[in-house]
This record gives sequence, structure tokens and C-alpha cells, in this order.
Amino acid sequence: MTTLSDIGVAAAINISSALLFFLAFAILRLQPWNDRVYFPKWYLKGLRTDPVHGRAFASKFINLDWRAYCGFFNWMPEALRMPEPELIDHAGLDSVVYLRIYLIGLKIFVPIAFLAWTVLVPVNWTSSGLEGAQIKNITSSDIDKLSVSNVHSRSERFWGHIIMAYAFTFWTCYVLLKDYEKVASMRLGFLAAERRRPDQFTVSSIIHIFTYRNMLVLVRNIPPDPDESVSDLVEHFFLVNHPGHYLTHQVVYDANKLAKFVKKKKKLTNWLVYYQNKLERTSKRPEIKTGFLGLWGKKVDAIDYHITEIDKLSNEIVVEREKVINDPKSIMPAAFVSFKSRWAAAVCAQTQQSRNPTLWLTEWAPEPRDVYWRNLPIPYVSLTVRRLIIAVAFFFLTFFFMIPIAFVQTLASLDGIQKAAPWLKPLVKIPFIKSFIQGFLPGIVLKLFLIFLPTILMIMSKFEGFESISSLERRSASRHYLFNFVNIFLGNILTGTAFQQLSSFIHQPANQYPVTIGTAIPLKASFFITYIMVDGWASIAAEVLMLKPLIFYHLKNFFLVKTEKDREEAMDPGSIGFNTGEPRIQLYFLLGLVYAAVTPAVLPFIIVFFGLAYVVFRHQIINVYNQEYESGAAFWPDVHFRIVLALIVSQIVLMGLLTTKKAASSTPFLIVLPILTIWFHRYCKGRFEPAFVKFPLQEAMMKDTLERATEPNLNLKGYLQNAYVHPVFKDSMDVDDDDEEILSMDLETESATVRTKRQSRRNTPLPSKNNDASSLSV
Amino acid sequence: MTTLSDIGVAAAINISSALLFFLAFAILRLQPWNDRVYFPKWYLKGLRTDPVHGRAFASKFINLDWRAYCGFFNWMPEALRMPEPELIDHAGLDSVVYLRIYLIGLKIFVPIAFLAWTVLVPVNWTSSGLEGAQIKNITSSDIDKLSVSNVHSRSERFWGHIIMAYAFTFWTCYVLLKDYEKVASMRLGFLAAERRRPDQFTVSSIIHIFTYRNMLVLVRNIPPDPDESVSDLVEHFFLVNHPGHYLTHQVVYDANKLAKFVKKKKKLTNWLVYYQNKLERTSKRPEIKTGFLGLWGKKVDAIDYHITEIDKLSNEIVVEREKVINDPKSIMPAAFVSFKSRWAAAVCAQTQQSRNPTLWLTEWAPEPRDVYWRNLPIPYVSLTVRRLIIAVAFFFLTFFFMIPIAFVQTLASLDGIQKAAPWLKPLVKIPFIKSFIQGFLPGIVLKLFLIFLPTILMIMSKFEGFESISSLERRSASRHYLFNFVNIFLGNILTGTAFQQLSSFIHQPANQYPVTIGTAIPLKASFFITYIMVDGWASIAAEVLMLKPLIFYHLKNFFLVKTEKDREEAMDPGSIGFNTGEPRIQLYFLLGLVYAAVTPAVLPFIIVFFGLAYVVFRHQIINVYNQEYESGAAFWPDVHFRIVLALIVSQIVLMGLLTTKKAASSTPFLIVLPILTIWFHRYCKGRFEPAFVKFPLQEAMMKDTLERATEPNLNLKGYLQNAYVHPVFKDSMDVDDDDEEILSMDLETESATVRTKRQSRRNTPLPSKNNDASSLSV
Repeated sequence: MTTLSDIGVAAAINISSALLFFLAFAILRLQPWNDRVYFPKWYLKGLRTDPVHGRAFASKFINLDWRAYCGFFNWMPEALRMPEPELIDHAGLDSVVYLRIYLIGLKIFVPIAFLAWTVLVPVNWTSSGLEGAQIKNITSSDIDKLSVSNVHSRSERFWGHIIMAYAFTFWTCYVLLKDYEKVASMRLGFLAAERRRPDQFTVSSIIHIFTYRNMLVLVRNIPPDPDESVSDLVEHFFLVNHPGHYLTHQVVYDANKLAKFVKKKKKLTNWLVYYQNKLERTSKRPEIKTGFLGLWGKKVDAIDYHITEIDKLSNEIVVEREKVINDPKSIMPAAFVSFKSRWAAAVCAQTQQSRNPTLWLTEWAPEPRDVYWRNLPIPYVSLTVRRLIIAVAFFFLTFFFMIPIAFVQTLASLDGIQKAAPWLKPLVKIPFIKSFIQGFLPGIVLKLFLIFLPTILMIMSKFEGFESISSLERRSASRHYLFNFVNIFLGNILTGTAFQQLSSFIHQPANQYPVTIGTAIPLKASFFITYIMVDGWASIAAEVLMLKPLIFYHLKNFFLVKTEKDREEAMDPGSIGFNTGEPRIQLYFLLGLVYAAVTPAVLPFIIVFFGLAYVVFRHQIINVYNQEYESGAAFWPDVHFRIVLALIVSQIVLMGLLTTKKAASSTPFLIVLPILTIWFHRYCKGRFEPAFVKFPLQEAMMKDTLERATEPNLNLKGYLQNAYVHPVFKDSMDVDDDDEEILSMDLETESATVRTKRQSRRNTPLPSKNNDASSLSV
Repeated sequence: MTTLSDIGVAAAINISSALLFFLAFAILRLQPWNDRVYFPKWYLKGLRTDPVHGRAFASKFINLDWRAYCGFFNWMPEALRMPEPELIDHAGLDSVVYLRIYLIGLKIFVPIAFLAWTVLVPVNWTSSGLEGAQIKNITSSDIDKLSVSNVHSRSERFWGHIIMAYAFTFWTCYVLLKDYEKVASMRLGFLAAERRRPDQFTVSSIIHIFTYRNMLVLVRNIPPDPDESVSDLVEHFFLVNHPGHYLTHQVVYDANKLAKFVKKKKKLTNWLVYYQNKLERTSKRPEIKTGFLGLWGKKVDAIDYHITEIDKLSNEIVVEREKVINDPKSIMPAAFVSFKSRWAAAVCAQTQQSRNPTLWLTEWAPEPRDVYWRNLPIPYVSLTVRRLIIAVAFFFLTFFFMIPIAFVQTLASLDGIQKAAPWLKPLVKIPFIKSFIQGFLPGIVLKLFLIFLPTILMIMSKFEGFESISSLERRSASRHYLFNFVNIFLGNILTGTAFQQLSSFIHQPANQYPVTIGTAIPLKASFFITYIMVDGWASIAAEVLMLKPLIFYHLKNFFLVKTEKDREEAMDPGSIGFNTGEPRIQLYFLLGLVYAAVTPAVLPFIIVFFGLAYVVFRHQIINVYNQEYESGAAFWPDVHFRIVLALIVSQIVLMGLLTTKKAASSTPFLIVLPILTIWFHRYCKGRFEPAFVKFPLQEAMMKDTLERATEPNLNLKGYLQNAYVHPVFKDSMDVDDDDEEILSMDLETESATVRTKRQSRRNTPLPSKNNDASSLSV
């Protein structure tokens, strides 16, 4: 049992490490040579240039202006200042709505914490249940005095907890309802944003693409026809079945091999640049070995070797590209069909086309950047088989992942190493190495697995056949959440591997589940408080420091960068990472709701996490992250569902807990809560979820009419014709024209249209001038 | 434990009672005065007239032709003879697909029974597990020797059962897949049937209506607008959002009060006819008392009294009708919108119309007869609340229904009666009455509840707010199935009320559930065999006798019938009753699949049930039932789902059973089966269910094009304008024109268009001449 002072120590350590990170960040970000690491978003948007030019030599690298260092936390209010509509323009709706998750955390937990501390804490504190319990050999900490554990069995005080459970549920549902409403209307507004004219350069490319997306439908599983090509087939089908609406279409090429070539060429070009730089610095022609990893083989001149290799590859790319374009077999049975009006596209995306519902599947086309090209041609039967395989695989991953890890851990133990590699024996006997192997290696093995978990889950989702990156990430997130729920939440409460829990659950009566969890919950409060501080506080503070991109940027800068464009390529802004971030937030929602009525002492720690994370991520979204795609907040129904799930878990746990406390007269009143919560979820699903799946005809028609009135002679076909080209295909076309432009290709096309309403922020970011008041508006 | 001879006795009793019913049926149906009871369908279609005219007096009532009596079971091959396409014309798709459920039963269980008897029965019979068990005080019957109980624990013979479980699963899934495919294509073919021209009088009215239904969409939850009437609002909305496609619409009137008046008038008219007939027979003017139930009050002349009352009501009806038509408040926020093409209607039915997905809800309009008018104006929020209430109510109904019944049973017991009504004491002491109260009354109370159960479930569905009778029946059926599963299947296996089971399940570890059921299953085989014979054989045979309609017809005929039309009204053909019939069939699927691998001796009894029921219902559908609506086999996904559910239950039960038999090496191989079965269900759902919910655009377009080519000048508006009038409203319009026509109104409008390809069958039904071979085609 941890005492209050233990927690105090842990808090001190974590707070100081968090402060340390912030301090390092505050200093590092002001250095001009780190500018591209901490403000890459502005560079990508073309609104900021290197501060290196036209300064004194020293100030090129180190900021000598002492005034800049005065406010360590200046970036925090700055991050909060940008108003929401501008933030949508600047970073897209996905990022803004992602921030709302943290905001919801604050909105839910601040009033709940207030209520819990004014009502429940006095009720618990003034009880004396633990004094009696201590006789029975149960040790308790000071934290437990604040928790429900301190209330006597059969006490009438439990009515307070039950009433509070009702209050918490209603408040959470109210916040969720209001936010679902708000996000749904934000999404519809975003989809309908009328900003398409090419002269209107204050428009971000994301909204740009979204405006067109309303006219595009992705068609999958086009049935093969021996007499017609896929392209003709698509044209005929839509000309017949959507007469007067069909505009044009783009077929999808199978360019996986081409993509491989282009990737290889890019890598070789990087090496070429590296050796050329080396030559410049050392004036000695570098040599390499051609064998595996450059370890053996014939010695050749590195620069010549790479130039010839690149030439060879370029030729292969040309051949392959011709082949892909001209071979009908490389056309996949999928196409992007565009329509003359939003109305027609909405109709096509929402209806069943053919008698066989597994052919001619239509859905909204994902944004071009969001398309996961490799999964487009998977047929329906294969999809259902894949789902089955992955469902089984995920079950084993969740419940049996400890088996291979335990195996590796035995291998990595002292005995294991001595058996597998007897020649290491003398080394192992050194005390330092021995203690390292015993103390750290097993933990590191587990940690490594957890680091790779998102990747494993992502591979599983990819195998399942989703056709957009956003849906891949959503799927991974829900799997990750389940994994966290079983292995972090239940795993720590019940102590034991997931499989042991599973088997103990199977061998327990169903009515014992909530009791088992309910008994353990209050005892684990102090553990979870520490967990929140380590995982929540310190790691959020580390997020803002961007240590990995910082190191990589400077390494690349040193070895590879020749031109301004290379420097841009060297930046690694990263993105939000919905599939890793959201499951973590959900864990805090779960902990917060579960402990709200049980141990309110947990709540302040969670509130600090949400507040800190909100500020940090707002800063990162404004200055750093470069989102890879825009899904229009399509993830919200998932977020909503998981918070509701956490609410239901919290109610069941409380029921179990009160059962062990023998509060027989009051516990039955809790049964109503989960039923009402499930009903609330169903209501919200029916009321708001269609906004994330469908597109109402009324909206589409309004937009169409408006557009026809304002721009009667719009040439849509020209724009839509090439909106969906396989990115690699685009790249490879480019490669032949100008080798130097390969790397910057993507960035350039983007920055051509990406401007925001803000003024250029040349050097140290200045606070935004407009609408300060509304920056926190919700 | 029942022995083979016990079952033999039960079989003899049930077979002879079934034979008795068939015998009575064979004689009664040949009597001319019963003709309208046993062949009402043909009368309703206008293809058969009374055999009373133009015969010798005696032969008007009794069939004296001895040859007719020769073949008792002639009606059976006759029933099988009508080919399926003709049957669809004759009785509609619903009836034909309903018959397929029985056929599926045969298709599944005949091969399974064959396999089970050739493989499992020898395996079980040659074992000697029960001989050892008898020492342990477990009595066993001969039936058990054929069952898995007879196999030793830990025996390798269980591999046989496991392999058979796989074979049964694959065969069942194969049959289900093929049938889903077939039914889906039948439905699409039925929906697309192009037979609309008015001169084409060989067409049944059902297909007629369906052809139009493809152009009609039901709109619900039209938002209120203070400035516009509902009618204008609908017109404007669809003119704007479906320009060029909208044709016309019909608003829905709130005519519930009018309906009440019309119903009352009909009843009074019936009494008037009764008294007039009495006057004719007795030549004495009948008198009645005006008070409650005619028991007290002023004595008046019955005929005069009824005539004045009817006059009064007629006036009220006129006033109310004017009010409904002219008062904008009596227009409900729902409308039937018709479109110029099937394509446009398909688009409207499948898409979301407005930004708020709970407003302007569109779906396919149910057939006019199928509309449940009272539920059309329920708003979305109210709907979700109603679902919640009914879900809770149904839970209590299923698990706690025994409590009120037990209460009534105690009231109806000897002690209860003596307490409640001491003055009955002397009566109760009579031995006969005493034994009646003790032996029968509790059973009758339970039976009465079970008779009213479908009505209760139907009321619950109505309260839930479904807008068509077919969906009400589907919902009731699935509730009834659940009730049966808990109270008949589990109830008899575990012996105890549902609530006791529930509580024992809650207090048991989850892995014990299959074991508990698995242990009990083989022991209950003989009970279920008896159940099948009583509930399946005898009551199916009683179905064909139509005892209740027979008695009621002759009573009505004696007291009420004056004209030919009255006689038609007196017929009570009834209909299939999906909500009562289907759950019963599903119980047999469940029993059959569960016992297939456990006690194959059950299978022949089930096969007899399916065979018998198929013949009987085919006969009833051809000659008797007059289906109330046509949903186009919309119930098939439910039927499919429940058979799959039965399959999964059977697999889990087998797993539990083998666990108790300690077949540890082989049992894990069964775990794959439920996973594969669930996957199979998901596959089928994705592949076929859309055919029952949506209407593919390709099909719609094909039909539209065909129609435009063949009939360019079709006036659809004229036909569609009055397709959806509240039936009572239609009646009440009629009432004023001609009082005599009230009763026959419905029938007349129907018989005007109802003709089939078959020749009129004037007297005793003749076998159908065409396509005998295909009558059993599947």
C-alpha cells in the first residue's frame, strides 16, 4: 500500500522531470538552428524561412537575445490563442476535433471532481470503516481514507455514492451529447465549405480537396468482363444507371512494383548525395564494397557506382511505367467516379448499384492522400475471410501475447544466455552486466513489444482490407483500446496475465465478475495515480521536446542536406497518430470515470493530464504536426462510443463494489444506470452517426444550386480528371523530368495552394492578433 | 425415464388422433355446406360459387357421391401439385417462401438423419457406457442406448460425433446458403415482375401493387412548419431536392376516431340484420333492453332502435369525415411520396434527406394493406423511448411471467377459492369439481396465458412503433422465439422457471453453462419426442380441420346471413400468422440440430413434422388462407438468422456434453465450429440481406427503361394518387352511398382484380393440369 508521502515523492519526480522537459524545450526552441524542428508546419506552408540568412554569425546558431528566455511558458498561451475556425483552416478538421477529445476530458472531469470532492470525500473521510478493517490484517494507505473503502459495510452513506453515480452519468452524457451535436455540425459545415475558386488563395488545400470529394465516389469490386476493359465497363455502367449525372472516372493502376523501384531510387539518390557531400568535405573519393551491407565484396568508387545504379533504375522505372499504363492486366477492378453534382454523388454513394450487393460497391471516395491503394482491389469473399482470420489473430494477440514474450524473456535471462551462448559466460559474470540482465532485460523485452504493438495492429488492419488510411487508423485504435482495456486496466487490477484472467473469469459465476473487479478497484488507486503521472504527465511533456526528430534532423542536416529542398525533406514533423494517441486518452477516461465515485483522489491527476495534453497538442498541431490526411473527423463516433463504454464499465464496477460492501438496499438502484446509458448511446447513434457516414441530399442540393448560380461555366472535369493518381505513379512521372525535384515533389504541390489567413511568421512566432477571445471557444 | 414402449404408446395416441383429424377433415370437406369453410380462398378470388344451386335437395348439404370418399388423402398430392410460379400468383410470395421454411427443414434433416442413423446410432448402440452407469443409480431408457449417453467417458468414439458435428454444420450451412440465394432472387424477381397493364387480367392484385410500390416512398417525421401545411411542405421539399423525379404525394390523415365510428356502425348493422332475420323467422318483433349488455334498462323495439342508432352514427361519421379532411391538425407528419421512375424512388428510399437524420425519414412504402396507420406519426425521440420501455418489459415478461401466473394459480387452487369465496365451499367439496380444480385449473391458467402470448407480444410491437403489419409480425416472431427458447427449450431442460434458471446461470461460472445444458440434453430426449408428437403432429393435423372457423361459419350463417355477400363475410379464411407459426418451426430446428449429434432418435419425429406441416400448410395456402398483406418475403433474414443461432447452440451444447464425458483430446476441435458458423452468418448477411432492404439502381433503371419503351404515355399519377388512403376513410366514404355494400366493400375491390391463371374450380377441387413435375421444384 502506498501512503500519501509515497505518492508525493512520485509526483515530485514526475513534476520535476516534466518541468525539465519544458525547460529544455523552452531553450531549444529559441535556437535558430532548431527552428525547423520546432516550427516545421510553418515551413511546409511556406510561411516561414530560415532565420540563418542575414544575421551575425553567432546568432545564426544561438539565440543571444536574453529577453526571449524570460518567459519559459510563453508558448502555452500562444498555443491557446489561435481561434478554432482559423485552426481548422490551418491544420484541418481532424486535428481540431482531436483536440476536442482533451477538452471533453476537462469538461467532464472538472465538474465531476468538484462534486466528488465536495460530497464524496467528506462522506468517505468522516467514516471509519478502515479502522475496523485493519484488525483483519488489511493494510490501508491515506489515499484509501478518501475512498469508498473507508465507509462501513451496510452503511446508509452509500446512498451518497449512488446519487453521485447518477449525477456523474447524467453530466457525462450531457457533455457527450452536446459535443456529438457540435462535432456533427462542424463536420457538415466543413464538408459544405464553399471555397473552390483558384484565385481564392487564402484557402487550405484540405478544404479544397474536400469540396471536390463531395462529387467523387469510390467504386470497388467491379465484376470482370471478358469483352470490355474496366474503364469502358465503368463508363457504360454509370452512363446507363446514372444518366445525366455521370461526369468522368479514373481507373486504379496496380503500381506496387513501380512503387518499389521509385522507393529504391530515392534511397540510392540519398546515398549519392551523402557521398558527394563527403567528397566535398574530405576531397577524397569515397569507396564502398558492393556486398551485403557494404561489409564485403568488390571495392568500387561510391559516387560512380551510385550514378550507374540510379541510371539503371531510371530506365527500369520508365519500362515499368509504360507497362503499367498499357497492360490492361495492371488495371485494378476499382475506380474513382466523379459526378456532375454533389447530389448525384451523394445518391451514388448511398445506394446499392447492382443486384449482387457485393459487386459495384460504392462509397465516398477518401481524400487522395488518405487512399490506401494496395487494398482497393480485394474482392468481397476474400475480405470476409480476412476479417475472420484477423479476429482470431487479435484474440490470441490480446490474451496470449505474454507467451512469446515470456519465452523471449527466459532466453534473455541469465540461464537462457548461458545455455544459448556458453562463450558469453565470462561476460555475464561481471556484476554490472548480470544485474542489468536480471533487472532490465525482461522489462525491455516487454517494452519493445509494446512499442511495436501499434505497428502490429496497423499491419493487421491493413491485412483486413480497409481502403483508406483513416479507417486503418480507426480500426487500429479500437483494437489498441481493447488491448489496453484487457492488459492495462484489467491486467493491473486483477494482477495476472490476460490469459490467466480469462480463465479465471470463465471459471467464475457471471455475478462474480463485477465483484472481483469492484473489490480490487479501490486498492489499485495509488498504482494508477503513479501510472498517470509517469505515462500521462512526463511523457506528454516529452512529446513537446521532440527529441527523436531533433536528433534525426541534425544528423540529416550534417550528412545529406545540400539544398534548401533537402533541408525541407530532413524535417520530420510527424502527425497526431490517432491510432496510438486516442487509445491512451480513452484509458484516462476509463480510469477517471471508474474512480470518480470510488476514489475521487485520482481525479485531479487526470484533470492535470487532460489540461497539459490539451495545451501541448494544441501547440504541436499549430507548429509541428503535418497531418497526412483529412477524414473530416470521421473518428468521432468511435471516440463517443468508447467514452460511453467506459461509463458503463464504471457503473458495473460500482455495482460490484457496493455488493461487496453489502449495501443490498441501495445497490439495485444502480441497475437502471447501464440500461439508460446503453439507451443513450443508441439514441446518439441514430441521431448523429449518419452525419459521419452519409451526406444529406438537401445539403448537396443546396450546394449544387449555389454553385450553378455563382459559376455557371465551371469546368469540373478538368480538375477532377487527375485528382486520384497513384502517388508513386505521379512521382515516377516526375522523376524523368528532373532528378532534383524528386524529393520535393510532394511538398511543392502542396505548398502551391497552402496559404492561411495568418500573416507570415518569419522568425520567432508572434501571437495571433485576431479574435483572441474565441481561441478557447467550444 | 421413458422406455421405448412408452414412446410407442404416445406415438400411437398421437398418430391415431392425427388420423382422426384427417378423417374428419376428409369427410367434412366434401360436404357442400362446408364448402366455404374449406375453400374460402377460391370464393374470395371469385373462382368458385356455391354448390347449393341446381342440385337435389339432399345433395345440397351432404355429399352422397360415394366415390368422393374413396381417397381419404387425395388432398395431399393435390396440395403438392400446384407449381411454385403459379402458387406465387395464387397466394403471393410470402406464403410460398413461408412454405420453403418447412422444405428447408426436410432438406436439412433428411440427409442428417440418414448420416446419423448410419454412423452415430451404430457407434452409440455398440457401446456399453450405460451398463456401467446404471450401477451409479442412474436409470436409463432404451432411447438412451441410441444416444451419446451410451458411450464410455474418455472413449475415442467421440471422434465420430465430432466429425458428424462438422458434417451437420457444413450441410446445414450449405442448404441455408443455397436457399438464401434462391429466396433473394425470388424476391428481386417478384419486385421486378412487369405486369401492370389493366387489360392483363390474369394478374394477381399483389404483384399489381408491388409493381407500383417500387415508385412509392413513405416519408415520416416531417418537421412542423408554422407557415406551410404538411402537404405543401412535402411538395416543396421533394420538388427542390428531387427535381424532375417527384410526381405526387398523399398525406396521411389521423382517422382513428373515424375508424372507431365506422367499426361501431358495422357492429350495429350486424345486430340489425340479426333482429330482422329473427323477425322473419318468428314473425314477432324482437325487443331489447338498452342498458349494459342488454341486462337492464328500458325495453325498446330492437329493429327501430338499431335503425335510429345507425342513422345517428351515419351523421356523426359524415361530420367527422369532413372534419378530418378539412382540419389541418388531423394531417399527420407523414406522407406517401410517389416518383416518376423506380430509379428515383430507389434513390429517395435509400438516402438521407435532411441534415438532421431523424427528420424526413424515407423508406420503401409498405403495401397499402400492410400499413399500420396508427404508428405513422410517432417522432424519433418517442420511438427510442418506446424501444427502451419494451425491451425492459420483454425481459420481465420472459423471466418473470411465472410470478403473476403462480399468483392466479394459487387463487384458482382449492384453498384459494375457499378463502376468496367461502360460499363456494359446498360446491368445491364435490369430488368431480375438486379434482377438476386440482388437476386442470393450474394447467388451464398457464395455457390461457400462452394462448394470449402472441397477442401480448403483438401489442408490445405495436407500442414500439413499427409502421407496417409485416414488421410488427416479424418483431413479435423474434420475441416469441426468444420466449420459447428460454421457457420451452431451456425451461424443460433445466426444469425450473426461467427466473430460477437465470439466477442459477448468474451464480455459475461461464464455462459451466454448456456443461449444465449438455448434461441434461440427452436425458430430455424422450420428453421432447413426446412434445414433438403432441405439439407437432396432432396440432398440425388439427390445423387442417379448421374447427373454430367451421363452427363460427355455421353460427353466422344461421343468424346473420341474408345475402350472398353476407355469406362471404361470414367466411373466416385466416392467414398464415407468421408471428405464431415461425417461432414454432424454429423450435423444431433447434431441437433437431441439438439432438442430431446427441440422440439421433429424435430426428425421424422431426422429419415427420416437417413433412406433414409442409403438406398441410401448402393445402391451406392454396385453398384456405387469405394473406392480409404481402411483404415480399421480407422475413427471410430473420428465419435464416434463427436457424444459424440454433446451429451455434447445438455446437455449444455438444461441446458441453463432451466435456462432461471427459473427451478432453477431441473437444477442442469443436471450438472452430461456432466461429466458422458466425463467420458464415456474417458472410450471408453481407451478401444477401441488402436484397431484403434495398433495391438496386441497376434493376430499377432496367425496369424504367423497359417501361418507357413499351408504354411511353402511361398515366401513373392517376393510379398512384389514391393508392394509399386510410382504409377506414375509404370505408366511410362508401358507407353513405349504399348501406348494403359496407360489408363487402373490401372484398369487392379485391375480387375485381384478383384472377389467376387457373380455371375456375366450381365444385370439388380438381387437380391442376399444368406443370405437375415442377410443383415440388425448389
